[in-house]
Amino acid sequence: MKLLFVSSTDRIEPWRQAFARIAPDIELVAWPDVPDPDAIEFAAVWKYPPGELKRFRNLKFVSSLGAGIDHILGDAEFPADIPFVRLIDPTLTSGMVEYALWATLRYHRQTLEYEALQRSAQWRPLPAPTTAERRIGIAGIGAIGGAIAQAHARLGFDVAGWSRSARTIEGVRAFSGAESWLPFLARTDILICVLPLTPSTHGILDGRAFAALPKGAYVVNIARGGHVVDRDLLAALDCGHLAHATLDVTTPEPLPPDHPFWRHPQVTVTPHIASLTDPRTAAPQVVDNIRRFISGRPLLNRVDRANGY
Amino acid sequence: MKLLFVSSTDRIEPWRQAFARIAPDIELVAWPDVPDPDAIEFAAVWKYPPGELKRFRNLKFVSSLGAGIDHILGDAEFPADIPFVRLIDPTLTSGMVEYALWATLRYHRQTLEYEALQRSAQWRPLPAPTTAERRIGIAGIGAIGGAIAQAHARLGFDVAGWSRSARTIEGVRAFSGAESWLPFLARTDILICVLPLTPSTHGILDGRAFAALPKGAYVVNIARGGHVVDRDLLAALDCGHLAHATLDVTTPEPLPPDHPFWRHPQVTVTPHIASLTDPRTAAPQVVDNIRRFISGRPLLNRVDRANGY
Repeated sequence: MKLLFVSSTDRIEPWRQAFARIAPDIELVAWPDVPDPDAIEFAAVWKYPPGELKRFRNLKFVSSLGAGIDHILGDAEFPADIPFVRLIDPTLTSGMVEYALWATLRYHRQTLEYEALQRSAQWRPLPAPTTAERRIGIAGIGAIGGAIAQAHARLGFDVAGWSRSARTIEGVRAFSGAESWLPFLARTDILICVLPLTPSTHGILDGRAFAALPKGAYVVNIARGGHVVDRDLLAALDCGHLAHATLDVTTPEPLPPDHPFWRHPQVTVTPHIASLTDPRTAAPQVVDNIRRFISGRPLLNRVDRANGY
Repeated sequence: MKLLFVSSTDRIEPWRQAFARIAPDIELVAWPDVPDPDAIEFAAVWKYPPGELKRFRNLKFVSSLGAGIDHILGDAEFPADIPFVRLIDPTLTSGMVEYALWATLRYHRQTLEYEALQRSAQWRPLPAPTTAERRIGIAGIGAIGGAIAQAHARLGFDVAGWSRSARTIEGVRAFSGAESWLPFLARTDILICVLPLTPSTHGILDGRAFAALPKGAYVVNIARGGHVVDRDLLAALDCGHLAHATLDVTTPEPLPPDHPFWRHPQVTVTPHIASLTDPRTAAPQVVDNIRRFISGRPLLNRVDRANGY
């Protein structure tokens, strides 16, 4: 059984080892060196060249190698009749939770202010809100956003979440639907974006959204660069309405050396490292879905193409 | 009933309001303006001038306004027959947990490295250990250290704790006693000190301790400046054995502007802000102990002078 492996960022070797350990009957074939395209029945892909998959005429289903599936949705030539699934990797989720907690605590504990005080050797305690007085807003309350919400609620933060359709998470105030987007932002001191990138969320962090946030708010984007309208973010920072932004994702990636985000004093850039898929925990999910497909059982984490997630 | 209030750092007004709300029969008298010292029966103190309390001949017991009681133990003229108690303030504990998580995640998520890469506009993901591969060591596993240990264990870190006497916390590897101090340090990548300051822990973070930590380890001190031998810490950083230190407490406080910690590239200094006692949650504990004393019931969180905690 042959599984095509296509990734612009991952090394294949750890994946080969992970599959060999649990499914020696599945042979990984590394794109682009594919001697017999018709022998490929399954594919595991991450940011592959659009149109590339239609070469594989016997492809039965495709698994994304991450939680994001915008690289598949963005491929206009992706064969319409082939189902595709995303990964819900526990390691990936916990990495996102760590990064979100790191960014929140960095702002909440006034790190940037204390770093400035240290540069001038000033010992000056600053008035500080408690976690209960700090309102966290999580845009996107799926598997990852829900885990981030719970981790913040456990520290006593005042947490709300926004999602397209209504979701309930204990201890988290739920907002849903387009009409609640601005009210959700209006009560958010630290915004954490983990939305899926779809046509309806592309550019959702624009001037209107930033204006809806309270003055002095912080923005953390760990979803996709395409959610942010860069010039609107820069304007909201420059005029003093927003305090600071932490961006793990940008348009494009890598962020070009001359992009203003790099040198902006109110922007922290990290190179898409909030979380990485771990082959050791992800490969079993790919294998499970292959087994499910073969035995005619429903696939897990199948993407609804109409919703985009 | 008169309660003497002595603090070199707290403003009395929030305390007066907190006491007025729950115990209008208790009158706060702000040191040093005490018209009738003999009318003082109880005292709530934080970093008061040594010897000062013996003026109050009818003092029945003393409450520290924080978890630390080294300011009382260090007062050679503190009346030997007067019991004293410490506060176990949930707000204080959660502040310590936040600060410890902030410091750990800052190191764990390679913030200092990514800040350096941003300064040269370099998009370069770095190899990263998972939380399970990062060994956290918490020196001092009491109410605060235990809460810090659990918060880290919940994120999947490999957590161990060291204490003078044996303690058990689920998911935390326990070390206890002087003979296990160096073995505990040898398995610790990020050390978090929350020990009480006693004669046996004074200067415990010395050259021998730093040498026992693995090369590249991080040190976080949120206990007391007196735990650290400053010149040994500087030597361990300068020779490259330790990677970085985060110090919320120093000797003395405030840290003088010419102290080398301020400008050392491998040291982060914050001005003793890891946690502040919140009068709204702390005043009820002081009142409860006053009521207990009056009705002859045992005091809560009484300090054993021989142990020093």
